[in-house]
Amino acid sequence: MELRDFFPFWEELSPKERQLLEESSAPRSYEKGAILHDGTQDCTGLLLLTKGQMRAYTVTEEGRELTLFRLLPGEICMFSGYCAVSSIPFPVTVEAWEPTQVLVIPSAVYRGLMDTSLPVARFTSEMMAARLSEMMWLMDQILSRGMDSRLAGLLLEEKTLANSNTLHTTHDQLARQLSSAREVVSRMLKYFQTEKLVSLSRGTITILDEKALETLAQGSKRPSIK
Amino acid sequence: MELRDFFPFWEELSPKERQLLEESSAPRSYEKGAILHDGTQDCTGLLLLTKGQMRAYTVTEEGRELTLFRLLPGEICMFSGYCAVSSIPFPVTVEAWEPTQVLVIPSAVYRGLMDTSLPVARFTSEMMAARLSEMMWLMDQILSRGMDSRLAGLLLEEKTLANSNTLHTTHDQLARQLSSAREVVSRMLKYFQTEKLVSLSRGTITILDEKALETLAQGSKRPSIK
Repeated sequence: MELRDFFPFWEELSPKERQLLEESSAPRSYEKGAILHDGTQDCTGLLLLTKGQMRAYTVTEEGRELTLFRLLPGEICMFSGYCAVSSIPFPVTVEAWEPTQVLVIPSAVYRGLMDTSLPVARFTSEMMAARLSEMMWLMDQILSRGMDSRLAGLLLEEKTLANSNTLHTTHDQLARQLSSAREVVSRMLKYFQTEKLVSLSRGTITILDEKALETLAQGSKRPSIK
Repeated sequence: MELRDFFPFWEELSPKERQLLEESSAPRSYEKGAILHDGTQDCTGLLLLTKGQMRAYTVTEEGRELTLFRLLPGEICMFSGYCAVSSIPFPVTVEAWEPTQVLVIPSAVYRGLMDTSLPVARFTSEMMAARLSEMMWLMDQILSRGMDSRLAGLLLEEKTLANSNTLHTTHDQLARQLSSAREVVSRMLKYFQTEKLVSLSRGTITILDEKALETLAQGSKRPSIK
């Protein structure tokens, strides 16, 4: 994977700007479990994932690791270069979930480009806003609404009723049982799928990790489902 | 207040762009308590606060309103025009905390400017990133770390020890008692000050609203301070 594969604005850059990015980016490899960035460290730089998988998480007061997002090859970790845009530290840790290869772009280089190139500024703004709002949504649903444990509890109930790991139910039906919206349930189920708790296919939800769902369900501050 | 007072990039706009902003912006007034925007509604547009005060909050599962930020005259509410940049809804409600006057810029107009003007794209990206990261920090500290209730509890303890509403203590001392960082405590105290729970001055913290601090302290999931 090359730089052009990561940046949709590549063709809009001047030859000089492309050269700058190419000359300043450096490949790096990390073993599984290595910490690529933690929120309190200095600017690591933008990480472009060429191989493997990265996981960004925050650790809650109870010591629970809350996965905020995962990155696959072709995706960019902005948080590690975030100091590029803001000086507010946020305690996000980024780890290599598998053996991982990245291209690192120094924050100062990227920052400079953002100051002079409209496509770069636009791309950054959109990507950052989408990622941050995604993370806020997740934190709100999980930390404030307990939606992860409520949904986990409901899936386990449905499993008992169906006497099967495969549930034939719609996201809409689940949402109504949780007094929530279909979209919320769909996105939380997708999050569960990324975390390998369930697998989703048309019309069915298959429970993959009952133990983990039980742990989540017990984590609920309100055991009764509304 | 005029548009130029809100946008540091005003002088960098072309006459045409300025004209577009001026012609498309419209003044609106809201009574105290009016809801200017809620996360599920359509795009309200960018709100530029010319008079009064606005409060943005989210409602937690327990029904508690968590203030995310307040806006004073001269400040811009991006969330209400947020659909301009992202389609991910986030349940933020914006209300008029006092009788409030705003200038509304339609989302589509602002979006168009972001697509063609580097200063606008840069400004938006920075403001949005700062605001979102501020909000994430707050949600993380409050919802995940219970830092608001732990600090409230500690302030009440200190008040009892000092037998006075005025505490002579440093942010650093408070931070060490909470096993936290000075910066975290300072920012949370500032938040308390904005919410009129305490007032801060050099070397002292004055408790203004003991009842509210008690409510916060009781909201802690872990009554014991680490």
